[in-house]
Amino acid sequence: MANPLIDDRTVDFILHECLSITDLLKLPRYSGHSRETLEMSLQTARKLARERLFPLYRAMDLDPALYRDGRVHTHPAMKEVYAQMAEAGFLSASRPSTVGGMELPHAAALAMIAYLAAGNGSAYGFAGLTTGAAHLLESFGSDELKRTYMEPMYAGKWTGTMALTEPHAGSSLADVRTTATPRPDGSYLIRGSKVFISGGDNTFSENIVHMVLARMDGAPAGTKGVSLFCVPRLRVEDGKLVENDCGPSGTFHKLGWKGLPSIALQMGDRGDCRGWLVGPANQGLRCMFQMMNEARLMVGVGAMAVASAAYHEALQYARDRPQGRALTNRDATTPQIPIIQHADVRRMLLAQKAIVEGSLMLLLTCARYADLMEASENEEERSSARQMLDLLTPVAKTFPSEKGFEANALAVQVLGGYGYTSEFLPESYLRDQKLNTIHEGTTGIQSMDLLGRKVLMDGGQSMRALVEVMEKDMAAAKETPRTAELADELKAALDAWVEALTVLGGRAAGGDIDAAMQNSVAHLELAGQAIVAWLWLRMATVAERALPKAPEHDRAFYEGKLRAADYWFHHQLPRVYTLATLLKREETSFTTMPLEAF
Amino acid sequence: MANPLIDDRTVDFILHECLSITDLLKLPRYSGHSRETLEMSLQTARKLARERLFPLYRAMDLDPALYRDGRVHTHPAMKEVYAQMAEAGFLSASRPSTVGGMELPHAAALAMIAYLAAGNGSAYGFAGLTTGAAHLLESFGSDELKRTYMEPMYAGKWTGTMALTEPHAGSSLADVRTTATPRPDGSYLIRGSKVFISGGDNTFSENIVHMVLARMDGAPAGTKGVSLFCVPRLRVEDGKLVENDCGPSGTFHKLGWKGLPSIALQMGDRGDCRGWLVGPANQGLRCMFQMMNEARLMVGVGAMAVASAAYHEALQYARDRPQGRALTNRDATTPQIPIIQHADVRRMLLAQKAIVEGSLMLLLTCARYADLMEASENEEERSSARQMLDLLTPVAKTFPSEKGFEANALAVQVLGGYGYTSEFLPESYLRDQKLNTIHEGTTGIQSMDLLGRKVLMDGGQSMRALVEVMEKDMAAAKETPRTAELADELKAALDAWVEALTVLGGRAAGGDIDAAMQNSVAHLELAGQAIVAWLWLRMATVAERALPKAPEHDRAFYEGKLRAADYWFHHQLPRVYTLATLLKREETSFTTMPLEAF
Repeated sequence: MANPLIDDRTVDFILHECLSITDLLKLPRYSGHSRETLEMSLQTARKLARERLFPLYRAMDLDPALYRDGRVHTHPAMKEVYAQMAEAGFLSASRPSTVGGMELPHAAALAMIAYLAAGNGSAYGFAGLTTGAAHLLESFGSDELKRTYMEPMYAGKWTGTMALTEPHAGSSLADVRTTATPRPDGSYLIRGSKVFISGGDNTFSENIVHMVLARMDGAPAGTKGVSLFCVPRLRVEDGKLVENDCGPSGTFHKLGWKGLPSIALQMGDRGDCRGWLVGPANQGLRCMFQMMNEARLMVGVGAMAVASAAYHEALQYARDRPQGRALTNRDATTPQIPIIQHADVRRMLLAQKAIVEGSLMLLLTCARYADLMEASENEEERSSARQMLDLLTPVAKTFPSEKGFEANALAVQVLGGYGYTSEFLPESYLRDQKLNTIHEGTTGIQSMDLLGRKVLMDGGQSMRALVEVMEKDMAAAKETPRTAELADELKAALDAWVEALTVLGGRAAGGDIDAAMQNSVAHLELAGQAIVAWLWLRMATVAERALPKAPEHDRAFYEGKLRAADYWFHHQLPRVYTLATLLKREETSFTTMPLEAF
Repeated sequence: MANPLIDDRTVDFILHECLSITDLLKLPRYSGHSRETLEMSLQTARKLARERLFPLYRAMDLDPALYRDGRVHTHPAMKEVYAQMAEAGFLSASRPSTVGGMELPHAAALAMIAYLAAGNGSAYGFAGLTTGAAHLLESFGSDELKRTYMEPMYAGKWTGTMALTEPHAGSSLADVRTTATPRPDGSYLIRGSKVFISGGDNTFSENIVHMVLARMDGAPAGTKGVSLFCVPRLRVEDGKLVENDCGPSGTFHKLGWKGLPSIALQMGDRGDCRGWLVGPANQGLRCMFQMMNEARLMVGVGAMAVASAAYHEALQYARDRPQGRALTNRDATTPQIPIIQHADVRRMLLAQKAIVEGSLMLLLTCARYADLMEASENEEERSSARQMLDLLTPVAKTFPSEKGFEANALAVQVLGGYGYTSEFLPESYLRDQKLNTIHEGTTGIQSMDLLGRKVLMDGGQSMRALVEVMEKDMAAAKETPRTAELADELKAALDAWVEALTVLGGRAAGGDIDAAMQNSVAHLELAGQAIVAWLWLRMATVAERALPKAPEHDRAFYEGKLRAADYWFHHQLPRVYTLATLLKREETSFTTMPLEAF
C-alpha cells in the first residue's frame, strides 16, 4: 500500500469533529468558502503530495542541490513540481483575493500544506518560504514593491527567502552587521554576508527575492537598529531584470533536507547591491516577526509531517514483516508472525501515532486561533485568539520537532537493521527531522520566548487564559467514563505546572532572572507534554462520544484515538511531575560549574 | 585544540581511583603486568587513535566501502591502519600469551579499545569482530581449526565476522535456515544467505573467516537445532588458499558507519562452500553467546565512544564560539560571549558529559567483573562476578546506545546550524550512533533479556546481589556531606524499582507473562537510569574524598565529577519514578489495540 503521508480520516476528524472549522466559514472573510470547497482544495493537496511530490522525495535526497559556477543547481524536477504547487494556488492559499489568494482559513491551508511537507519537505520548502516573503511585502511593502516583487512571488514566477543569520552572530540578531547606505533614488546600497539561507538560490525560478535584515548607516546598536529590506537577486530596472550583485558564495552540505539548498549569500561585493526598505526604519525585527512566527508554525508542520510519513512507513512494514513468535510460543515449527503483533513494536507505533496526531491537533488548533485573530468580527475574540496563538507558537514549533525526532528514531527502530539502510525511507526522515530543533530559533530560543516573554513577562495572563480553556475541556471530559479519569490526571498535571511557574515567577520577581530561566528548556518540554495531553483529552472526548453511534467500519478509528490518549496519559504525561520538581529545585549543577570542569 | 576523543584523566580516575584495577594484577593470570605496562599500552592506544584512526574518520565517512565486481572495496587506508592495530597487539589484548595475546585485564583492554572506537569506529570494527571470531575458535574450535583459522586472525593477517542474521528472520535465530550437510572428510557443505554481516568482505585482508550459524541436516527445529560453523572466504587446501564459494552479493547503504561495510553473504551457490563445526552439534547458539555477549559490550563501548568524541567536538566549539550576551545584558555594544557561558549550552554539555562518563564507568565496571569471572582464584567470587556481568550486560549495551543517541543529538544542537552541516563532525557521529540501538540485539531484545532471563527467571537472585553492592556504596556515600543526600535519593529510587519488580514478578508468577513483559523497554530504561545513578554516586564519593587533598590544578576535575553526579540525580534519576509507576500500572493502550486502529 502506498504511503498515505498523513491519515486523511484523522485530518477530517480534527478539522471537523474537534475544531468545527466550518464555523469559521460564517466569518465574512471566509464566506466565499463552503465545506465542499475546503474539501476540494484538500483533495488537490493530497493528490499533488502523493502523486508528484512524494515520488521525487528519495531522488532529491540522493541528488542534492549543488553549488557550481556561482549558482546553486537544484533538482531538475523542481521546475515542474514548483509550477504545479503554484498553479494549485498553494503559494497564496490563505491570502486574500486582492493578491490573488484563495482566502482559505489558515486551518484548512495548514492541513493542505501538511500533506505537501510530508510528501517532500524540500520541494515544499521553496514554496513556504516564498509565501512568507511575499506576505512580508504584502503587509509592510510599498505599493511599488508589491507590484514589482510581491506579485511575481505569489504568481509562482519568482521565489523568496528570509535572510537573517550572519556567520559571526547566529541567533543573536542584535549583532546583525549587514549595512544599508541610502542612495539618492530612495533605495539602499546593501553590503554583507548571510548564512543558512534556505532556498537562497535555485535554477528553476526566474528571480529570487531575499527579505534581509540590515543596519542603516548610523542606526543604533542592537535590535533597535535593525531594518528590513527587500533585496532581489535580479533587480527590475526599466522593466528589465538586471544583476543585483547578490548571490550564493556556496552551499552547506547538510544531514538532510538535501533538495532545499542552504546557502551562504553574498551581497554587495562589487558595491552594486540595491535593497528597498520594507516597513519603518529600525523596525525590521518587528516586521520580520510576522514571517518568523509563520515560519515557526511551518517548522512545526514540517516536523509533524516528516514524523507522520515515517510512521506510515513503519506501520506498513510492521504489518507486512513476519518475524518471531508470541512470547509464550516456543514452537519454532509454527509460522512467524507479523512484527506488529509484538508488544514492543506496537508500543513504538502507538508512541509515533500519539506524537504525530497530537502535533497535528496542536498545529491546527494554532491555525484556528490565527483565523480568529485575523478574521473574527469581535475584538475581544481577536485579542484572546492572539494571546493563545502567541503562547502556543513556541510549543507548536518545538514539540513536533523534539518529540518528532523521537518518533522518527522509533520508525527506524521498528524496521531494525533495514531501518538503518537507504533501502527504506525512515533513515532519511530521521536526518531531515534533526534540522527542526535548530532552524527558525533553536529549542533554547523557543524556550526563552515561552517562559520569559510569553509567561513571566505578561504576569501570567496568557497562562491563565490557557488554563481556562483547558478547564472547560476537562469539564466536558468528565462527562464520559473513559475520559473522566484522564481529566483528573490532566488537572493534577496542570496544578503541578502552575505550582512550578509560581516558584519561577517568585525568582524572577526577586530579580534572579538567571535562576528563573536556567531550566527554560525543561519548562518548554513540560508545557508540550501538558498541552498535548489537553489536546488528546479533547480528541478522546470527541471519540468517546462518537463511538456508540459510529458505523462498524469506523469504530476502530475512534478506538485508536482513545488508545493514543491512554498512551499519552500513561507513558508521557507523568514526565510533567519530574520536570516540575526540577523547575522548583534550586539547582546549580551546570550554571555555576567551573569552565575547566567540563 | 585537537579532539582528545575520550578524557584521559577520567579514564585514569575510573580505572585507578574508582575501580582499583591494579588490584587485579595480584591475580596470577595478570601477574606479568604492572601499572606501568598498563599505562604503556593505554598510551599506545591513545596515540594510534588520535594520530592514525581519527584523521581517517571523515575520509572513510565520505568515501564508503563499495560493492564492485563481486568484492567490497574498503577504504585504501585500511590496509595500513589495520596492520598498525594488529602490530600494537590490539587484536588479542586480553587473550592469553598461549595464543600470542598481551594477557591484559579486560578493564585495561576495554579502555584501550574505547579510544580506538572513538577515533574511528568503522576502522576499529574490523578488529573487534576479528577478535570475537578468533576467540570463538579459541574457546570451541578443534586444534586444527585453531592452527588454520584462529592464528592468522589473531596475527592480523586475516579478519573475522559473525554471521547470524538471515533475511527472512532478523533477530529470530530460531528460524535460521542455512544448511550444513556432512561430507565424508568431516567438513560440512554450507548453503544459505546471511544479511547485515559487518566487515563481511574487504580488500585489505588476505582472507575472511565467518562464524556462521547453520542447521545440520535433520537437526531439530528452533534454536535447539542451530550449530556453529567456521566458514572462510578462502579455505586452506594442501597449504594453499582456494575459493570457498562464499562471498558478498552486495552491501547495504547505511546511515552511518560508512567505512565498515554491512554485506549480504551468499554461501554455497555453486555447491562448494565448506564449513567446519565449532563446538558441539546443535549447541551453536550457546557457543555464539560468548561472541554475542562480548559484542554487546563492544556495542556499548562504541556507543560511549561516539558520544564522547561528539561531546568533545561540542565542548571545544562552545568554548570558542562567541554569540549573544548574558540574559540580563541588553547592551549590544559589549562584545559577544562564548556560548559555553549560556545556561542552556552548559546544560547540554553537562548532559553529554554525564551520559558519556556514566557509560564509561558502567562499561569498565563490567570489564572488571569479566576479569574476576575469568581470573579470580576464588570460586564464589568468580560466580558472583558472572552473575553481575550477566545482569549488567543488556544495560551496558543499551544505556550508552539510547542515551548516547540523546547525547549525540545534543552535540549537534550545541553547534546550531553548523551542527547540521558536514563542516563539523557531530552530524556524522549522530548517524553512526543510531545503529547501536539495533545491532547485536535491539533495545527490545535486550529489554526482554534483562527483565525475563536475568531478573524474573532467576527469581530475583541477581537483582538482590546488585542491590547489595549498591547498598554498600550508598553506605560509603553517606559519610561525606555532598554525596550523603544523593545516597538517600538513590535509595528511594532503588526502592521504587524493587517495588515495581515485585508487581511484575507477581504477574509472571500468576502466569501472565505478556503483562509482565509488555513494558520491558521501560524497565530497561529504568534500570539504566538507576544503575548509572549508582555509578555516579561511586564516582562522586571518590571525588568528594579526593577534593580536600587535591592539588589546585586538579580541583576542577573532581568538582566536574560532583557536578555531573548532581546533574544525573536532579535531571535524570527522577525518571525512575515515572517508569516505575508505568510498570506497576495495568496498562493496555497498545497491547490490546485493534490492528486497524493504528
